[in-house]
Amino acid sequence: MNDAAPLIADLAAAARRAAGTLAAAPTAIKAAALRAAAAAIRACADEILAANADDLAAADGLSGAMIDRLRLTPDRVGAMAAGVEAVAALADPVGRVIDRDTRPNGLALERVRVPIGVIAIVYESRPNVTADAAALCVMAGNAAILRGGSEATLSNRAIHAAFAAGLAEAGLPAAAVQLVPTTDRAAVGAMLAAAGLIDLVVPRGGKGLVARVQAEARVPVLAHLDGINHVYVDASADPDMARAVVLDAKMRRTGICGAMETLLIDRAFPEPVALVQALQGAGCEVRGDPLEASIGDIVQPVSDADWDTEYLDAIASVKLVGGVEEAIGHIAAHGSHHTDAIVAADAGVAERFLAAVDSAIVLWNASTQFADGGEFGLGAEIGIATGRLHARGPVALEGLTTYKWVGRGTGQVRG
Amino acid sequence: MNDAAPLIADLAAAARRAAGTLAAAPTAIKAAALRAAAAAIRACADEILAANADDLAAADGLSGAMIDRLRLTPDRVGAMAAGVEAVAALADPVGRVIDRDTRPNGLALERVRVPIGVIAIVYESRPNVTADAAALCVMAGNAAILRGGSEATLSNRAIHAAFAAGLAEAGLPAAAVQLVPTTDRAAVGAMLAAAGLIDLVVPRGGKGLVARVQAEARVPVLAHLDGINHVYVDASADPDMARAVVLDAKMRRTGICGAMETLLIDRAFPEPVALVQALQGAGCEVRGDPLEASIGDIVQPVSDADWDTEYLDAIASVKLVGGVEEAIGHIAAHGSHHTDAIVAADAGVAERFLAAVDSAIVLWNASTQFADGGEFGLGAEIGIATGRLHARGPVALEGLTTYKWVGRGTGQVRG
Repeated sequence: MNDAAPLIADLAAAARRAAGTLAAAPTAIKAAALRAAAAAIRACADEILAANADDLAAADGLSGAMIDRLRLTPDRVGAMAAGVEAVAALADPVGRVIDRDTRPNGLALERVRVPIGVIAIVYESRPNVTADAAALCVMAGNAAILRGGSEATLSNRAIHAAFAAGLAEAGLPAAAVQLVPTTDRAAVGAMLAAAGLIDLVVPRGGKGLVARVQAEARVPVLAHLDGINHVYVDASADPDMARAVVLDAKMRRTGICGAMETLLIDRAFPEPVALVQALQGAGCEVRGDPLEASIGDIVQPVSDADWDTEYLDAIASVKLVGGVEEAIGHIAAHGSHHTDAIVAADAGVAERFLAAVDSAIVLWNASTQFADGGEFGLGAEIGIATGRLHARGPVALEGLTTYKWVGRGTGQVRG
Repeated sequence: MNDAAPLIADLAAAARRAAGTLAAAPTAIKAAALRAAAAAIRACADEILAANADDLAAADGLSGAMIDRLRLTPDRVGAMAAGVEAVAALADPVGRVIDRDTRPNGLALERVRVPIGVIAIVYESRPNVTADAAALCVMAGNAAILRGGSEATLSNRAIHAAFAAGLAEAGLPAAAVQLVPTTDRAAVGAMLAAAGLIDLVVPRGGKGLVARVQAEARVPVLAHLDGINHVYVDASADPDMARAVVLDAKMRRTGICGAMETLLIDRAFPEPVALVQALQGAGCEVRGDPLEASIGDIVQPVSDADWDTEYLDAIASVKLVGGVEEAIGHIAAHGSHHTDAIVAADAGVAERFLAAVDSAIVLWNASTQFADGGEFGLGAEIGIATGRLHARGPVALEGLTTYKWVGRGTGQVRG
């Protein structure tokens, strides 16, 4: 048994009790708690920034990117509070009737959305996840157990304290949002092993974290490991649209999970060279087959490993294919079921792609960088899921609920 | 590495290819395959019964109940074929649009139901599961990998051969439904470890099987372990209705997962003795607190373990409680999140129970024995799930699907 198991069991038991209260809490109370939490985050901005400064001062040996993720500024604290308020304004999924049916025997059945229960969030050095994840869990009626990265310990505590003040102001239990009080790695192991105590784990962070959670968890996990996303440019694509979509999909932000990593170009598309040069002109390294007649001379050589690589950088692999079926086959062999797009004027080809590509998100004539809960109208997201069960793609409030069957009878027996 | 892992990986790879075909198969083709499979089952009834006779002849040391589950008769073969035809007549969930939204930028988004992919069914000695599970998986567009109990090997092969003939007649790939060709227990371990290859495991059988699957699986599992179901009789209950519901919930069939195991009676209910005596008169042993004034003299003594016991027999535990809140608390402490019912005339009390009891199915004035996909209008069921993710309660075709996001644009970029 993991040393941290008793600690996690205690946190989970408190969370389960709080979850009962949260499940019954009216929308107005949950929203009021979030608005009060946002106000407390604003009111405590100085304390939060001071705690963050201490975390930064202690952050030896972190990369520049990690320091940037860890760093809070007055603007970032304001954005965090605004994010919590935005969640408070979202429609509450709890209590929504999915469907109803009165059986021939008169039994009136409904499927009603209910919270999942106890959700653990395991994340790295971004302190804003503390507020974001707590807000989404609470609004969907779930108790949250948060385990952030050790480098953000003081920042997370300060944000959590502000959030707790908001919960208290609305009369919701403190255990609705708990921060694991240790940065011992064994605590993560105990959370992942807590089947029956914790209902869902959401890892937020890099591939190392997600891979560990997926490998170890005995609790259901909502996550994506990779975003090896493709844009297929069909022969029928408008060249200007293809260039705009490909540039945005790769270069708008190269480090996000929705970025394109591999460009597939139909050999019958008239302007492959212009497409590659557009990427290169924007500062992207393009890797392809040097023997490919049209683009071989202008690309860096590609290796087999490239097709399975998520660069998260200004690098793209490019492959010329013999039409949509080869593109579909390439994506099936090398994709990560995250987001894949086709640029095409031919609706039949596009619909074939949308139907056959087995990814959480498939797009026609739009950039893969739309893979985002906000862009999809969900108002926020706890993450993007590439698993096949429960929820796929951007997950927000609805994905943090489940349902129960409610039957109302007049004494029916099965007989 | 498990010795059977290469075998399972091969089966899963073939299933994945077949799943691609099935996902794109029109409803009419899937339904035609099932009707052809049903016809083949009827046409091969003699072969199936002969294979079953051989299984029965080899069935040394099985209990009477296991022999009964294993035994096929002409009527049972006919019922199996009829069951497959019933699934063929169900509405196809694949392609159904869950919701749609056109974003302010013009991107038209839909969430569309798609098959889960590759589903493994692990079951015991009931050969009819071979046909039932295959039919549900195929109709929802999934490839099935079936692993039945060793005692039913010949029966399962004969049923599978008939099913395969139906698939072939409709032009669907043989690997849409595969039977694991070994009864080596390591094959089950390899299936449970096949994360990424198998998308979902559904165990069908006794508690030992389900517990093993839940403990070992690295693949998502849809199942219920226990059905420790309660009926709470409120002070406001009509005594005649209470008696009818309680008798049906316990005694209609005692061995099914929807049977009542514990009766909770409000101390203010006027006729607790009549309720207990009705159960006893129907042949049920009733265990309760001997010191309880009203019923202490007529019950067998109850132990603490009884409250956590699924008898699956003509035994019930009974507890007198001080109203609906104590009933809710008892169910939270001892229930298994399967099916719990209240009998009450007071709608406020009933709604409190329906909201607060955290079970897959909650019923008001109806017997717990309605916990069944057929009774709920689903036409069939692959099982009843008490987990909190993906699907709860009776699971049929919809529960065997997931969704993808499909976006249709006109060149939108995130910019």
